Amino acid sequence: MEEMPGALGTSSSFALRLGQIVFSSASLFFMCLDVDFYGYSAFCFLVMVMGLVISWSSTLLVVDAYYIFIKCLPRQRRCILMLTLGDMVLSYLLLAAACSTASVTDLLLVADKSYCPGKLCSRYQISAAMAFLAWFLSSASCLFNFWIFPSL
Amino acid sequence: MEEMPGALGTSSSFALRLGQIVFSSASLFFMCLDVDFYGYSAFCFLVMVMGLVISWSSTLLVVDAYYIFIKCLPRQRRCILMLTLGDMVLSYLLLAAACSTASVTDLLLVADKSYCPGKLCSRYQISAAMAFLAWFLSSASCLFNFWIFPSL
Repeated sequence: MEEMPGALGTSSSFALRLGQIVFSSASLFFMCLDVDFYGYSAFCFLVMVMGLVISWSSTLLVVDAYYIFIKCLPRQRRCILMLTLGDMVLSYLLLAAACSTASVTDLLLVADKSYCPGKLCSRYQISAAMAFLAWFLSSASCLFNFWIFPSL
Repeated sequence: MEEMPGALGTSSSFALRLGQIVFSSASLFFMCLDVDFYGYSAFCFLVMVMGLVISWSSTLLVVDAYYIFIKCLPRQRRCILMLTLGDMVLSYLLLAAACSTASVTDLLLVADKSYCPGKLCSRYQISAAMAFLAWFLSSASCLFNFWIFPSL
């Protein structure tokens, strides 16, 4: 069970966390850069969720790096439970934010060009796509941890 | 392991499936009744997902009723795996549909009253709320089946 990929303290978990941070930061970057995102509640929700995900994944990236490079600690049941619950909540929030952003962008594109001038809507779309990628990696983390939990 | 609540063939699984059917049907009812939902892609997505969920949950309701009232069959690993994957995909689709509907409704409420005359927007809101309830029950089914899977 120590070799289960994606579990806390493995190099694949480290890679998953790194991917989550990269995609969340990209999504946040495309949403915030020079864009008045606070006009729409769906976009504000995305920004809030991305802030949560980046801080959560950064913390666990540091923990993974500690496990890999310094020493291998035994995994505790309570720790994995907290991790699984946190990942689950964040992956649901990420999916919700990505879907809200995508549907609002779609509606803005269909409705009127005046709401979506220049390259604004393509930025919203890129931000939503990055949020979907971050959701995919986050739910993978959650499933791997959930999988090893009953065997602990 | 036979007594694990929420697993296939238990009365709690039967109740969960029944709840999914009720909330999905209610969501579909409020969305379709006298409303031009096909004008917005998020609402079309909700209707499609609800159709999938109602057929999936109805099938499994019949299977659960067979297990409970007629005979108790041994659970097979492959069967539970398919069930878990199906439930997972449907719960993600349900959350996506619910969030899209909620965010588009919010945008329509904020934007202009002409897009949202009379009691239309409150119907959209009720439909989104029902979709969230159906998502909650569907993800509960998925988690219970996922939980017993490693022990099979």
